[in-house]
Amino acid sequence: MAKFVTIGERLSTTAPAVNKAFSARDPEPILKRAKEQLDAGAVYLDVNIGPAETDGPELMQWVVKLLQGEFNNVPLALDTSNMKAIEAGIAVYNRDKGKPIVNSADASGRIEYINLAAANDAICIALCNGEGIAADNDERMGYLQVMLERGLELGMEPEDLWFDPLFLVIKGMQDKQLDVLNFIKDISDQGLNSTGGLSNNSNGMPKHVRPIMDSAMVAMAMMQGLTSAIVNPCDLRLMETIKSCDIIKNETLFADSYLEM
Amino acid sequence: MAKFVTIGERLSTTAPAVNKAFSARDPEPILKRAKEQLDAGAVYLDVNIGPAETDGPELMQWVVKLLQGEFNNVPLALDTSNMKAIEAGIAVYNRDKGKPIVNSADASGRIEYINLAAANDAICIALCNGEGIAADNDERMGYLQVMLERGLELGMEPEDLWFDPLFLVIKGMQDKQLDVLNFIKDISDQGLNSTGGLSNNSNGMPKHVRPIMDSAMVAMAMMQGLTSAIVNPCDLRLMETIKSCDIIKNETLFADSYLEM
Repeated sequence: MAKFVTIGERLSTTAPAVNKAFSARDPEPILKRAKEQLDAGAVYLDVNIGPAETDGPELMQWVVKLLQGEFNNVPLALDTSNMKAIEAGIAVYNRDKGKPIVNSADASGRIEYINLAAANDAICIALCNGEGIAADNDERMGYLQVMLERGLELGMEPEDLWFDPLFLVIKGMQDKQLDVLNFIKDISDQGLNSTGGLSNNSNGMPKHVRPIMDSAMVAMAMMQGLTSAIVNPCDLRLMETIKSCDIIKNETLFADSYLEM
Repeated sequence: MAKFVTIGERLSTTAPAVNKAFSARDPEPILKRAKEQLDAGAVYLDVNIGPAETDGPELMQWVVKLLQGEFNNVPLALDTSNMKAIEAGIAVYNRDKGKPIVNSADASGRIEYINLAAANDAICIALCNGEGIAADNDERMGYLQVMLERGLELGMEPEDLWFDPLFLVIKGMQDKQLDVLNFIKDISDQGLNSTGGLSNNSNGMPKHVRPIMDSAMVAMAMMQGLTSAIVNPCDLRLMETIKSCDIIKNETLFADSYLEM
């Protein structure tokens, strides 16, 4: 049993301001977003530099050194389709606050990310899908087994594979939500860790609704044994919910001030 | 599968204003609190007249007729230790919007409430305890079996027994919360209904914390299969969470405006 691990999602090239700052090697907007997330309680920060085909290794090293230098070796998830950039980032990564996370492998075209994580003693986020969305939980479990076996063969500890059930959009796939939640329990029942891009469930919903739906979803997922999620830590309601569920699950000791911790 | 059933808890002698209005047969404060709860989305209203040892039957009939007359036969939970008052209330109760709920039986001194419910074709809330708080889920299940058998022998439909796991105070019993949640799943796995005084979990917490903790708890409990709860429907965050969990569980169809429904 352990406290839920939040991975802050806001350092991503999908945000134009971040993309621009990465390109220009402009520290300020990056440090600002990092600080906001850490102040809000993020444990890990995800660093999504996009494909970064030309300058990936150099860019990732620059960001890793920038963030860890400024924020006391904050642990990071290195997120890019450029594997060389992840390797380069790990080469300059300080492990004092936690292993680097490789984001992410899947059971198909990205299976080699497990090798990369194994070779570098890293945690690996492992998406339980192949080509396209899994039809059911048997298929998800098949993908999980493929990735688990690969990791174990390469000498990884099972707890370093964080399986991602893939949260699905409620608008359009409302009837699949319980499948995803039940799969989280399947992962947990095997004693394995899990994570995922939680807010995908509320994609396309009105802006004021999303924190409400995301909070309901994270509580249900934590009940099923979810051990981590990639989230916007600046969503106060979500973070309050995560802290409350950690209390209910007896992962952290209650104090009247627990929301401020 | 069906939508979660909220039972509004705010018509109770534990509230001095309500107690006074019951004593004085003053309709206004009662109708005001009833309307607030119904406007906020309560399905049932609990009517807790306390022990009401002298005038219970007459008082309960007065309240039932008052509320059902004003609010289109709103369904009610009749809540008192005076069994004659419950019988009297049911005698004037209109079932158009749902059976009356008898609140409540237990497996010990209040087992006869099941007979009362069975004799009157009512729903019965059945507290899974005997004398004192159950030590574990085996004991809770023992109490459940006793009450279920009693109800079935008397010709009740199993779905008319709403088993209450008894939510426990986190402050003092933090390490028992998962037991309660797992027992809710045990109830659900038998295809049975459940309910309970949810907010007991946050008893003694700072006022601003309680809606946050209650919302986390209800989402986790709904994941475990809780089908109803006795709540303060004027807690907006709680009601938003319940509606969101009903969406995630595919009990109601998503619409962008689902929170307003």
